[in-house]
Amino acid sequence: MTMAGQGLFVSFEGVDGAGKTTQVERLADHWRARGREVVVTREPGGTSLGVEIRRLLLHGDEPIAARAEALLFAADRAQHVAETIRPALERGAIVITDRYLDSSLAYQAGGRELTADEIRGLSMWATGGLLPRRTYLLDIDPELAHMRLTHADDRIESAGGAFRRRTRRAFLDLAGREPERFLVVDASAPADDVARMICQDSANLVG
Amino acid sequence: MTMAGQGLFVSFEGVDGAGKTTQVERLADHWRARGREVVVTREPGGTSLGVEIRRLLLHGDEPIAARAEALLFAADRAQHVAETIRPALERGAIVITDRYLDSSLAYQAGGRELTADEIRGLSMWATGGLLPRRTYLLDIDPELAHMRLTHADDRIESAGGAFRRRTRRAFLDLAGREPERFLVVDASAPADDVARMICQDSANLVG
Repeated sequence: MTMAGQGLFVSFEGVDGAGKTTQVERLADHWRARGREVVVTREPGGTSLGVEIRRLLLHGDEPIAARAEALLFAADRAQHVAETIRPALERGAIVITDRYLDSSLAYQAGGRELTADEIRGLSMWATGGLLPRRTYLLDIDPELAHMRLTHADDRIESAGGAFRRRTRRAFLDLAGREPERFLVVDASAPADDVARMICQDSANLVG
Repeated sequence: MTMAGQGLFVSFEGVDGAGKTTQVERLADHWRARGREVVVTREPGGTSLGVEIRRLLLHGDEPIAARAEALLFAADRAQHVAETIRPALERGAIVITDRYLDSSLAYQAGGRELTADEIRGLSMWATGGLLPRRTYLLDIDPELAHMRLTHADDRIESAGGAFRRRTRRAFLDLAGREPERFLVVDASAPADDVARMICQDSANLVG
């Protein structure tokens, strides 16, 4: 766990539809209202190099090899840390990122040909070992999250259901292994309640 | 040293102007004339993903962090091996690449903030440990190579002279550490003589 300068570095994780965008903004508003500099950022694509890398990852002409993909995500993270996150932390800012290392572990390891240790090792090298002081895992039944996104009105099993359940399980496993870093939040609760809990927790970290 | 299938994998290294392009083609012609499938390729940019990565490396809007740059080169190499080199070796082809791992070591390590061990570790992971059976280092006085490229008619020290001398030194150091893999060739000799020596050496490898 590395914490540069006097800043605070936190990440949000969870499946799409868990409400990360909303909660990132709520936490940012909370600290801006209290006079703190807040930097809100995201992965992939938190820098202009990252945007280009993201475009490569999504729109390539040919299949991208698993190792090449992992290295591209790591390159995005390396630039993100060097250009955005570390300078902000050194200024004393609160840095909130929508996805970080744990998304790589949940989505790239498991199911594919790479191990979590390999992905973690790559990311730790890319970032010079920078981990968030706190990671908020917005945990939710993936079918409920999917309905939020698609506005579907039934619970018919959708094509990606098994994938989303595996991803949720992967996030919970990661949280179980690092209980000091993770706070698991029930993201099916009302957004106001979720935001209150996260803001209170972060107050203990900002000191 | 890994050699996939019945193919043969060789690389050419050296400073710009040493004559790599010419010698790669001469060796390819030699084996094509003898009925072998030859795949000529290059780094960076040996695949369409690699071309895109190369564009990012050369034309970014902002400075690229050292670790991000190293990861992008490694991603290019990972794709190059998975998409081009390994399939060709498995078909039994002779694969000739213009630059590979040693260029990363000579250009990215040394002078900058990353160690050779870090760059080598990244590349070995990217490629699943694939090294050329032979690496032809075209060694030449860098000022002579520079004159070949620029058609300058004097030996006035040019701006990049010190950089080119360091790079030559780095390549020679690499060759000294792996004498089994490297063949150092005097690239100031006539191109026909250089080509003859390389073709003879490769005949011992093709068997």
